Amino acid sequence: MITVIAITKDNRIEEPKLDELKFEDYKLIWIDCYDPKDEELYKLSKKINIPTMDLQIGLDEQEIPRVEEDEDFYLIIYKAPLFEEDITTTSLGIFIKENVLLTIHTDKIKAIGRLHKLISTKKPTTIFERGIGFLLYHILNEITRSYSRILMNLEDELEELEDRLLEGYDREVMEKILGLRKTLVYFHKSLIANRDVLVLLKRKYLPITTKEDRENFEDLYYDTLQLIDMSATYREVLTSMMDITLSLENIKMNQIMKILTMVTTIFAVPMWITGIYGMNFSYLPLANNPEGFWLILALMVIIIMTFVYIFRRSGWL
Amino acid sequence: MITVIAITKDNRIEEPKLDELKFEDYKLIWIDCYDPKDEELYKLSKKINIPTMDLQIGLDEQEIPRVEEDEDFYLIIYKAPLFEEDITTTSLGIFIKENVLLTIHTDKIKAIGRLHKLISTKKPTTIFERGIGFLLYHILNEITRSYSRILMNLEDELEELEDRLLEGYDREVMEKILGLRKTLVYFHKSLIANRDVLVLLKRKYLPITTKEDRENFEDLYYDTLQLIDMSATYREVLTSMMDITLSLENIKMNQIMKILTMVTTIFAVPMWITGIYGMNFSYLPLANNPEGFWLILALMVIIIMTFVYIFRRSGWL
Amino acid sequence: MITVIAITKDNRIEEPKLDELKFEDYKLIWIDCYDPKDEELYKLSKKINIPTMDLQIGLDEQEIPRVEEDEDFYLIIYKAPLFEEDITTTSLGIFIKENVLLTIHTDKIKAIGRLHKLISTKKPTTIFERGIGFLLYHILNEITRSYSRILMNLEDELEELEDRLLEGYDREVMEKILGLRKTLVYFHKSLIANRDVLVLLKRKYLPITTKEDRENFEDLYYDTLQLIDMSATYREVLTSMMDITLSLENIKMNQIMKILTMVTTIFAVPMWITGIYGMNFSYLPLANNPEGFWLILALMVIIIMTFVYIFRRSGWL
Amino acid sequence: MITVIAITKDNRIEEPKLDELKFEDYKLIWIDCYDPKDEELYKLSKKINIPTMDLQIGLDEQEIPRVEEDEDFYLIIYKAPLFEEDITTTSLGIFIKENVLLTIHTDKIKAIGRLHKLISTKKPTTIFERGIGFLLYHILNEITRSYSRILMNLEDELEELEDRLLEGYDREVMEKILGLRKTLVYFHKSLIANRDVLVLLKRKYLPITTKEDRENFEDLYYDTLQLIDMSATYREVLTSMMDITLSLENIKMNQIMKILTMVTTIFAVPMWITGIYGMNFSYLPLANNPEGFWLILALMVIIIMTFVYIFRRSGWL
Amino acid sequence: MITVIAITKDNRIEEPKLDELKFEDYKLIWIDCYDPKDEELYKLSKKINIPTMDLQIGLDEQEIPRVEEDEDFYLIIYKAPLFEEDITTTSLGIFIKENVLLTIHTDKIKAIGRLHKLISTKKPTTIFERGIGFLLYHILNEITRSYSRILMNLEDELEELEDRLLEGYDREVMEKILGLRKTLVYFHKSLIANRDVLVLLKRKYLPITTKEDRENFEDLYYDTLQLIDMSATYREVLTSMMDITLSLENIKMNQIMKILTMVTTIFAVPMWITGIYGMNFSYLPLANNPEGFWLILALMVIIIMTFVYIFRRSGWL
Repeated sequence: MITVIAITKDNRIEEPKLDELKFEDYKLIWIDCYDPKDEELYKLSKKINIPTMDLQIGLDEQEIPRVEEDEDFYLIIYKAPLFEEDITTTSLGIFIKENVLLTIHTDKIKAIGRLHKLISTKKPTTIFERGIGFLLYHILNEITRSYSRILMNLEDELEELEDRLLEGYDREVMEKILGLRKTLVYFHKSLIANRDVLVLLKRKYLPITTKEDRENFEDLYYDTLQLIDMSATYREVLTSMMDITLSLENIKMNQIMKILTMVTTIFAVPMWITGIYGMNFSYLPLANNPEGFWLILALMVIIIMTFVYIFRRSGWL
Repeated sequence: MITVIAITKDNRIEEPKLDELKFEDYKLIWIDCYDPKDEELYKLSKKINIPTMDLQIGLDEQEIPRVEEDEDFYLIIYKAPLFEEDITTTSLGIFIKENVLLTIHTDKIKAIGRLHKLISTKKPTTIFERGIGFLLYHILNEITRSYSRILMNLEDELEELEDRLLEGYDREVMEKILGLRKTLVYFHKSLIANRDVLVLLKRKYLPITTKEDRENFEDLYYDTLQLIDMSATYREVLTSMMDITLSLENIKMNQIMKILTMVTTIFAVPMWITGIYGMNFSYLPLANNPEGFWLILALMVIIIMTFVYIFRRSGWL
Repeated sequence: MITVIAITKDNRIEEPKLDELKFEDYKLIWIDCYDPKDEELYKLSKKINIPTMDLQIGLDEQEIPRVEEDEDFYLIIYKAPLFEEDITTTSLGIFIKENVLLTIHTDKIKAIGRLHKLISTKKPTTIFERGIGFLLYHILNEITRSYSRILMNLEDELEELEDRLLEGYDREVMEKILGLRKTLVYFHKSLIANRDVLVLLKRKYLPITTKEDRENFEDLYYDTLQLIDMSATYREVLTSMMDITLSLENIKMNQIMKILTMVTTIFAVPMWITGIYGMNFSYLPLANNPEGFWLILALMVIIIMTFVYIFRRSGWL
Repeated sequence: MITVIAITKDNRIEEPKLDELKFEDYKLIWIDCYDPKDEELYKLSKKINIPTMDLQIGLDEQEIPRVEEDEDFYLIIYKAPLFEEDITTTSLGIFIKENVLLTIHTDKIKAIGRLHKLISTKKPTTIFERGIGFLLYHILNEITRSYSRILMNLEDELEELEDRLLEGYDREVMEKILGLRKTLVYFHKSLIANRDVLVLLKRKYLPITTKEDRENFEDLYYDTLQLIDMSATYREVLTSMMDITLSLENIKMNQIMKILTMVTTIFAVPMWITGIYGMNFSYLPLANNPEGFWLILALMVIIIMTFVYIFRRSGWL
Repeated sequence: MITVIAITKDNRIEEPKLDELKFEDYKLIWIDCYDPKDEELYKLSKKINIPTMDLQIGLDEQEIPRVEEDEDFYLIIYKAPLFEEDITTTSLGIFIKENVLLTIHTDKIKAIGRLHKLISTKKPTTIFERGIGFLLYHILNEITRSYSRILMNLEDELEELEDRLLEGYDREVMEKILGLRKTLVYFHKSLIANRDVLVLLKRKYLPITTKEDRENFEDLYYDTLQLIDMSATYREVLTSMMDITLSLENIKMNQIMKILTMVTTIFAVPMWITGIYGMNFSYLPLANNPEGFWLILALMVIIIMTFVYIFRRSGWL
């Protein structure tokens, strides 16, 4: 699916069709290309005059973030959060050529969608007026805020998990932890790669960015550092939590085994005694004594009490 | 909440209101802004002439420590201990503009409170007399001493924990360990980030610091190195302790299972024998023999003794 | 086994025998030497005029990837996937001398086989026309795509494993995980070593590579970075999965032990009571009472119910 | 406690009191200050003319090793082994000012004591004759040999532990391991910090060291590298040992549970049969048959034998 | 023990005694000194004119590998495999002074022995003819091949272990793993240290090495890199194997506990029923009914079947 948003020379936001689009009519054009069919890609390639093979780099979900300068265009690969069963990350290609910024991606990227919707409904000219570097900043910023939002949620989830884990844990909690750890692994790697892109954008004097843009990228750089730090911290906290939980589970197991062992041990001798007196011998000592039953019963109770006392003294009860 | 402490040109400590504050009346002004309401922030921004957006960076609890030089002010982000359920860390923004030092933070920072109280009650002029770099040093020093105090306590707690862990452990101890590990994770990351700020302050010739200030920052730098070292050491000791504890717990579990297995094994055959003689057959060997009971009883006792002997020889008892 | 493919000066693909091969008849010659016998190696060494000792470096399966410039030839060592019981990696030697590219390897390398077959059947002249650097790129590219393909498969396997692990796991799954981890260990190391080779090939102005070749190697370099990233991510995900699984297994064990303990505990007292009433005393309280049986039975049922209630309240059921 | 040892200009070793000490009377003076009272510290500070605040840096047990050059003195912080319940490390301050070398420390440092005793009893002039750099080398050397001696002992202890661990382990062994790991954690960190001090002393042309001294520090540097290497190796060996032990413990647990399960399983059916024939029905099949008892007994024995056979075949016995 | 091998100026290999040795008679002399007595060391020191203290550095088994240039000799410390109970590593000192190469070591080093024997029996002049750098290369090469041989064996052992571990494991296997891990720890550290020596030998223009020697050292450098890589890979594979084994052991434990729990649970109610009917009440329901026995027996069988069905459905069987 290809959508186009552009600003005319007299600062109006329009949404022209790709087929009818004339680059020279607009000051700045943002083309978003999401999971394109082969013919769409071919059409786009012809229109914008970038080889299909290059465009396809942007469609590879696992492409490594970087900035590439080609003869007549720039390619920026950036990692964005991907919402599937678990939250992982996906790659996004941003091509910049003259007054056109092209975002191209195979997976749905929420940040892109949000920004696109904002522009097409509210038609704010500010984002477009300040040039292509500022639009680029806005897109990367929106993506960075995506990470931020998810990590904030994750912090709350972690705290909830901590409470639940200390209570005991079950399969559902475990699946959740597995999901969180996966997200943190992907986020950490992606954010570190994004950081390297931002280092370049904030330092290097690309002709597409103004001094102000570079300052914006610097802010984004610090935000990304902060997110990297958060994701690393959460991973360590998660690991700590799991270690502790395993220990708690061990304590519980111990307790359970103690109960089992106590019950078995306490009743072992009394049961044997009832077994002995259940034997069908014609002669059994005390069997015909009227107090026999009470004597043996008392003996058994004494044995039980003794064991209970021993266990209590050893701290098992 | 915004509080102001300032020193007049004739070296008197005053606590003017923000509204009535005239910057030119004082040699040095310290404004502390803690968890401000929107209107407070707006008022402050207008008064001190720093955009609200910049001030808000100081209010982000997870902002990454750094030194930023803007056109007409300096911004220093620093991490301080945060006392909540567990001890973690929070960010503090320090803006320096001409003769004003502004500390701004969302969370309560004990070190700030302590220093503020000290100045407002004892009114010592020394801290203010030596210029804004010296005040900055005092604030950072107070924060560093906060870390130091907590880590000292932590060492004692660790030693106490070690004793308790070797005795056996329970849920409460585990929650404590989880808390300590969390604190150490946060401290380690924050101290390393603070160190980078101090490296800059001790090396870079910022116009706000004198040579003496830079020497003070160098001391602070070494203190922070020391705290980083301590937190790393404590983490490793904590890990060692938990590993050992897990092993001890394993030993205990083994012991418990041995008891259970011994009791079950020792009584298995005797119980079967009583079962056999409890069967209601009209003919049972020895049943009518007057010594039958004693013979069988003796047999059972011998079996029990044999098993006890075997277990003792295998080192289970 | 030695096979030769060459392109004549008038752009025809031929497959001459090594013995009859005249280097000057061809524009470009690719000799592939797989697990050669001693006499083959000797013959080859004589024909191509590279000492046997040097050729043997290419045959060492564990040689470290690198680029070596000798007086009259280049040696490139590269790691390729090796399909045996588990998928590991093996080394491949590539000698380049004038218009001859010699690949030499002890283990079967699928990528080489695939490329060889492609050329010998489809006879595409493009690969050969653009010079020896382009042929080299094609071989390394084919190998890189081998890794890529395996890692893609591995991702699917990981997802399947995740589902199976949360269900419970068995020996077969474990052997699979062991295999996957082994593959990832070998891949990670090999890809990092290959990356160093590519860094050199993309940067260094070797006379055998054109500017276009170096751009191709740059692409390959980024592909390899991506594969390194993937293998690292998968390893962490695999570790997470195993940690979680161990915890799940612990939960299950706990559940099993709870059942055992409950059953043993619930029936301990009732069994003792039946034992008591099974004793052959001439006088047993209530024994001759017609309601005796029902009273005692009721007592036992009450005890059982009480224990069930206690266990349910403690959350064991 | 403050002790002074000095060499006169005519090469005699004397032990003057601090109060009567005149710096100009001696070629070289070594003052050792161990856990000083406040008044001692004050007196010392006045005598040697170094501010108390600086002296106190040397008394902080956790100060980070470094070399500091002040206007008129050098401060070297160095880590030495500390013998308490467990062996950890402590910091030592060495001040060098003109012809005075001052060692100051809160904890008892054996190496200092040993060297002091050696000099005061044997009065060897060699150590003092070659200047203050040589004395410094001797002190650091004695400390390094302290580490060396402990690590040598530790190697023996490790080997003893290995034997004991493979036999089975108990609380006492665990406490020992915990102690060893703690020692290794502290040693590793301290030795790395000391190494950085030695790098400086061997490289930097401090006016207090001669070329020969620097060569001595180079030797010490290599000794410290060696100790770092040893401590790292021992830690890994210790970790290996604990991993293996945990596995061995698991094997044992498995064996115990197998015995329990076998006993329970083998006797389950026979016990049920005796239970069945113990029921008080007026009619029981075979009950009045004279061979009934033997038949049922044979049945039970056969069942037992069958189970034993099954367990043996599955490799449980 | 001191042995001498030397080549005369007319290329004959001789084995002169140390006492009669005249340095100027030979082109090149190799002295090997293994675990010397004090008088041997003293004699050697006098003969070769290197202080005993320097020679003793070569005798320290844990000396760190390095190249030292003294005024009139070179000292190279190198790590070689040491065959004791477990395979670890030991240090070897190589002194080079004019036309004498002295190897000195406390532990037996197989590579030295092998080379010595080769030269003294086959008397090949090639090794000696090309100068002292070539002899040095030969010694280091022989040592490197020692590592190589052991690591090759280790790979086979690992594969054998893998098979055995998946079968189940016992004490013997564990001791083997412990040994292997220890060897890998020592090898990894030693090889990394050796690599640093080789980097120096291949780069630095020491007067004792020719260009050809440096090329040989470069080959040795790559061999060492390869061995480092192998040892790292094997360690990770070993860790993987142990993780998996622990999991497998857990599965087994689970299975055992399931059997125990099933047996206990299945027979709990039937045993209680037999207990109930074993009670000696004068009135028992159905007791005098001729079908009573069969009814109750049927009831018990139904209960057993039900439990078996439940367990089977839950996947326990």
